[in-house]
Amino acid sequence: MPTLDICFSPELLPLYNLKGKVAVVVDVLRATSSIVTALAAGVAHLVPFSELDECRAMAAQGYLTAAERDGRQAEGVDLGNSPFGYLDGQVAVQGRTVALTTTNGTHALHLSAAADEIVVGAFLNLGAVANHLRLLNKDVVVVCAGWKGHFCLEDTLFGGALAARLQADFDTTASDATLAALDLWAAAEPDLGGYLLRSAHVRRLNHLEAHQDMAFCIRQDEYDLVPVFKNGRIQITD
Amino acid sequence: MPTLDICFSPELLPLYNLKGKVAVVVDVLRATSSIVTALAAGVAHLVPFSELDECRAMAAQGYLTAAERDGRQAEGVDLGNSPFGYLDGQVAVQGRTVALTTTNGTHALHLSAAADEIVVGAFLNLGAVANHLRLLNKDVVVVCAGWKGHFCLEDTLFGGALAARLQADFDTTASDATLAALDLWAAAEPDLGGYLLRSAHVRRLNHLEAHQDMAFCIRQDEYDLVPVFKNGRIQITD
Repeated sequence: MPTLDICFSPELLPLYNLKGKVAVVVDVLRATSSIVTALAAGVAHLVPFSELDECRAMAAQGYLTAAERDGRQAEGVDLGNSPFGYLDGQVAVQGRTVALTTTNGTHALHLSAAADEIVVGAFLNLGAVANHLRLLNKDVVVVCAGWKGHFCLEDTLFGGALAARLQADFDTTASDATLAALDLWAAAEPDLGGYLLRSAHVRRLNHLEAHQDMAFCIRQDEYDLVPVFKNGRIQITD
Repeated sequence: MPTLDICFSPELLPLYNLKGKVAVVVDVLRATSSIVTALAAGVAHLVPFSELDECRAMAAQGYLTAAERDGRQAEGVDLGNSPFGYLDGQVAVQGRTVALTTTNGTHALHLSAAADEIVVGAFLNLGAVANHLRLLNKDVVVVCAGWKGHFCLEDTLFGGALAARLQADFDTTASDATLAALDLWAAAEPDLGGYLLRSAHVRRLNHLEAHQDMAFCIRQDEYDLVPVFKNGRIQITD
């Protein structure tokens, strides 16, 4: 039975050997939730960048640009990091390509390069990711984007929710991180929104837009699609 | 109100600024539990070393030597890493000095050097550490020794137990790590031994001696003493 492990921070990734494994990169608030939403809204593919300047430069190649720094939309780009940017109709996204950069999520994607496959996970596509992992039947490492390298609750809870769905098909007992995430998920699941309102990260984003984003980003199984990061692009897997 | 934060792994310590703060280093299984026990049994002071050879060389200076590698007593030393080594009477420890090295605990002690004070914590002296921190009234970072850099449950649960005792006097809500540790402690407290028997680390130590050690190391408030690490030595604070 393959194992499901959880890496609580990109800073801990050097301890994990991703070769031969599937990495599920998660940044619930909000990078991977927005990526899933973008693809559901008809974006053709997304290209993640570490640097804001690189991202902005892609406008010249016809890309929409999406950038967030410290929780807010960056200057001189088309979109921020809110999933509603792909839904509210202010920017036409159908069939477009998007260059994006975020504080934590992009970093985690690039650091996972050694994995056999890099899947983009969020509560919004939780069930689709779980089904995909069952089919692949390989060891999984959930890579939590965290908050500037620190442990964060929402990404850990995604790891716990995924482990809970996969307990029949994966060994979820081989690491203390997975055991802890499962217990935290059990504590949070009855009222995930209320639970996350206590979290340090969510309190830092204490404004109306952030709370609307959070309420959306914790919806489970909203979209039945699995984005993968391959050859520099994030697109829906076949 | 000072804050209480928890660092889940020595690998994450570079993210924390320990200056002006108190570091509480914890390696429940078993380094810090054994240090507390050693001092309770009358050891004058202990000197931690990173390398086994350095540790062994201290025998020439009259030190007892204690060393563990991968869970077992190392070759050519007087004591392993079991707290019972200081209690069972096979080695006379009263008034002696001890050189020790362990896989994870020693590393965490040395990495915490930037802190104003480095306290050695364990369930065995939980209440004494809590009282000491109340008196110091400074920001606290609990430094979990972890398992080869990975998150481990037993050290995290110590952090949660300490945070639970200090909730009236410290801000225990400022980091997601502390919030998670508090919830894990709430889940584990009714049957801490049973809870830890599920943990990956404890299952790796699946032999009789390890289980006896664990049953001892999770006793709370067995000893009313606070070891501090200062000028290379661990001794009881005044």
